Amino acid sequence: MIKANDPALHSWIEISPESDFPIQNLPFGIFESATKDPRVGVAIGDYVLDLCAVAQHNLFELLDVDPTVFHRPYLNDFIALGKPMWRAVRNRVSELLRNDNDEISGNSRLMQECLIKQSDVRMLMPVKVGNYTDFYSSIEHATNVGTMFRDPKNALLPNWKHIPIGYHGRASSIIVSGTDIRRPNGQTKAPDAAAPTFGPSRLLDFELEVAFITGRETRLGDMISPDEADDYIFGLVLFNDWSARDMQTWEYVPLGPFLAKSFASSISPWVVTLDALEPFRVKGPVQDPKPLPYLDFHGDHNYDINLEVLLQPEDGQENSICRSNFKHMYWNMNQQLAHQSSNGCNIQVGDMYASGTISGPDKTSYGSMLELTWRGTQPIELSDGSERKFINDYDTVIMRGFAERNGIRVGFGEVKAKVLPAL
Amino acid sequence: MIKANDPALHSWIEISPESDFPIQNLPFGIFESATKDPRVGVAIGDYVLDLCAVAQHNLFELLDVDPTVFHRPYLNDFIALGKPMWRAVRNRVSELLRNDNDEISGNSRLMQECLIKQSDVRMLMPVKVGNYTDFYSSIEHATNVGTMFRDPKNALLPNWKHIPIGYHGRASSIIVSGTDIRRPNGQTKAPDAAAPTFGPSRLLDFELEVAFITGRETRLGDMISPDEADDYIFGLVLFNDWSARDMQTWEYVPLGPFLAKSFASSISPWVVTLDALEPFRVKGPVQDPKPLPYLDFHGDHNYDINLEVLLQPEDGQENSICRSNFKHMYWNMNQQLAHQSSNGCNIQVGDMYASGTISGPDKTSYGSMLELTWRGTQPIELSDGSERKFINDYDTVIMRGFAERNGIRVGFGEVKAKVLPAL
Repeated sequence: MIKANDPALHSWIEISPESDFPIQNLPFGIFESATKDPRVGVAIGDYVLDLCAVAQHNLFELLDVDPTVFHRPYLNDFIALGKPMWRAVRNRVSELLRNDNDEISGNSRLMQECLIKQSDVRMLMPVKVGNYTDFYSSIEHATNVGTMFRDPKNALLPNWKHIPIGYHGRASSIIVSGTDIRRPNGQTKAPDAAAPTFGPSRLLDFELEVAFITGRETRLGDMISPDEADDYIFGLVLFNDWSARDMQTWEYVPLGPFLAKSFASSISPWVVTLDALEPFRVKGPVQDPKPLPYLDFHGDHNYDINLEVLLQPEDGQENSICRSNFKHMYWNMNQQLAHQSSNGCNIQVGDMYASGTISGPDKTSYGSMLELTWRGTQPIELSDGSERKFINDYDTVIMRGFAERNGIRVGFGEVKAKVLPAL
Repeated sequence: MIKANDPALHSWIEISPESDFPIQNLPFGIFESATKDPRVGVAIGDYVLDLCAVAQHNLFELLDVDPTVFHRPYLNDFIALGKPMWRAVRNRVSELLRNDNDEISGNSRLMQECLIKQSDVRMLMPVKVGNYTDFYSSIEHATNVGTMFRDPKNALLPNWKHIPIGYHGRASSIIVSGTDIRRPNGQTKAPDAAAPTFGPSRLLDFELEVAFITGRETRLGDMISPDEADDYIFGLVLFNDWSARDMQTWEYVPLGPFLAKSFASSISPWVVTLDALEPFRVKGPVQDPKPLPYLDFHGDHNYDINLEVLLQPEDGQENSICRSNFKHMYWNMNQQLAHQSSNGCNIQVGDMYASGTISGPDKTSYGSMLELTWRGTQPIELSDGSERKFINDYDTVIMRGFAERNGIRVGFGEVKAKVLPAL
C-alpha cells in the first residue's frame, strides 16, 4: 500500500506548492457553511472535503465506521474511535483524493457535494475541550523569564530540568482563530503603588505555543509511558496563550497564573495529525541530567515545525516579529503526557496540552512580547513607524506554522485574532 | 404560597430529626438502581424521589418542563433551564411531599414508582464538570500555610486581602463519594537529597472544602457582579481536595499546584441548592482593607454550615479530627464568581468552584492534616491507639456538613473515600 505521507503522491485537485494542505497533510477540522451545518472536514489545497457527505455516499463503506460521527459539531466522537480508525480514515481520504482515483473526481455531482471552497466555510472549534494543561517546556523561554524576574545566574528553578512543569488552565475560554478577543480587565499593582487598582490590562501579550489533542482516554490510576504516548495523541494545533503580564505579576503567587490567562486562548482550526507529521521527527535537545525512568523515551519525539508570529496594526500590514521552531522544546509531548498521567490523573478524549511559549536560542526567535522587547525595554519597530512594547488595541496577532522536507510542506494554516478594547 | 423553607412544613414521609434531608432541603442528585438507569433524583429522608418517574406521570405538567431533562446521567441539562425552573421544580417537589398533598401519597402504584430507598441506589457524579477552580479563601488556612512555609510575621502574601486567590484545577479527576482513591505516585525531593525520586507520595492529605456549581452561562467578555452571582449559583457540595504535600512542595514553583492535586478530588453526591441554604445566611468576616468596587457586595453571603472531618482506619472506628464551619470564609462565593469572571472569562453550566481549605480560628477546626499536625510535628492520636501525621493506606476520610436553625437541619450527607496503596 502507498503510504499517505509519500512525497510522490499527487491529488487530482490542483494544489499550490505554497499551500499548507497538500495530499500528504489531510488535517481534520469542523466547519459550517451557508448550506451545511457543523460537521467534520479535511483540508485539501484551497478546499474542504466534507466527510459527512463522503460517508453518506458510502465511500467509507469498507471502514465499518458509523457515518454519523462525521455529522457532529466537534471531532470528539470521531477521535474517540481510536488511532486505527483515524489512520484508516486518513488513508482512505488520501486514496479518494489521489490523482489515480476517480470515485469522487469522476462524478461531478459527488464533487459538488463533497468539496467546498475554504473561502466559503466558517471554521469552528475542532474539539470540545474537556481539560486543558499548559506546560512550560522551552528552556530558552524559562531561562529568559527567570533572568528577567529572578536571577540571571540561577535563571532556571531547581525543579525545571527534572519535571515538565505545567499547570491546569481554563478550558471554557479556548476559542478558534478568527474570534476577536477583548483586552481583559483585572487587578494590578505597580511596584511603587500603595494599593492595587482594577482596569484594562496595560501589558497584553501573546505566547507562541503548539498544543496536542488527546484521542484516547485512560482510567483514573492508569499511567502512560512516553513510549505509549504516540497512541494517545490525535494531532496538533497552533496555540496563542494570551497573557496579561501586569495581572499575572500581581496574582500568581503562590498558586500560579489564573485570570492573567483565562480570558482567552486562541487555536488554529485544523488539527494536523501525528501521522502527517511523521516525516518531520527530529532529535530533541540533550537532557542533562537524565530524566527519571518514568520520563525516559526511545526514538525521536521532537518535530521540525517552523513557527512565525506576525503583528498587524489596524488597517496596516503584517509585520513578522518572531521566527521560532517547535524542535527547540526541551521536554517533548510524550514526556509531558507521561508526566501528566504519572499520578494516575485520567486523560480524556479532546483534552488539550499546550507546550508553553516556544522560544529559540536567538532574540528573533523569542515567542512572546515579554521576551522580544525584554519587558518593554527594547520596543519593536513596525513597518508603519509605530512601536510596540506589548499588544495595542485593534492589533491582530497571527501565528503560522509548517514543516517542510523533500519538497513537501505540511502546514497548520494560522491562528489569528484581533484585540478589541476592554469593555 | 407556603415557602419551601418554612420550618412548619412536614412531609407524609417519616423523617428522623437527625436526617440531613427534611422537606426543607430537597437536594438534587443523579442515581441509578438495579431497575433504573441514571436519572435525576431528590433526597427526602431515607428515600430518593425519582424525578424522571414524577415527570412521566405528568406531575410536573404545570411547570412546562421538558420531562426528558430528568432522564439524563448528569444534572447539567436540568440546571441549564435556569433559576426560575430550579425553583419551580423544587417548590413543586415540596408540594408533592407535603403532608397535606396526596397526589403521590394517595396512590400506592405511584409511590412505588417514584420513591426508592437510598440504601437501594448508587449515587453518581451529579454534574459533568466542564471547568474547575480551586480558591484559597480561608484566612486561617492561608495564614497557617504562610506561617509554616514562609514567615510567621508576614504569613499572608501582599495580594491575599485584595484578591480571592485561586487556580484552575483538573476537572476529569473529580469523582463522587464512595469511589476509592489510589495513593499517587510522583516526583519528590527531600531538602537534603541530591536529586529527586519517583514513587508513592508519603504525605497524602485531605482538604476540607465546599464547592459551588454554576447553573447559568456567560459569554466571553461578560462580567458577573457579586450582587448578580446568586442567580448563577445552583447549589453546593462537600469537596475533598486530596493533596500530596511532598509532590506539591517540589512541583509548585513557579506555576502552582499540578499533579499534587489532579490525581483525585472527591465530592458529596447531593447538590444542596442555594434556596435551601437561604435561612442559614450570616455575615462574613470584616474585610479590611475594603475590597475594590468590582468585589463589593450587599447582604449576607456567608453560610453557617457545620463541617466535620472523620478518619476511619481499616476495620476501625470513625475518629472526628476536625470541626470547622463554612461561615469562616473570608472571601464569599459571590466575590469568588465575580473575580473569576472579572477578566471576561466565560462561565459554563456545571462548572465547579471550590472554596479552598476551610480552617477555623482554633486548632481543632483546621481543615487539613498539614495544619492539624502542624506539618507532622504534632501527630493525631486515634481511638485505636495509632497515630497519624498524614493519611495512611486503607484509611477512609469522611466529611460531613449540615446547617441547623429553628429545629430544621439542612445537610449535605457525606463525602467518603478510602485510600488504596499506590500501584
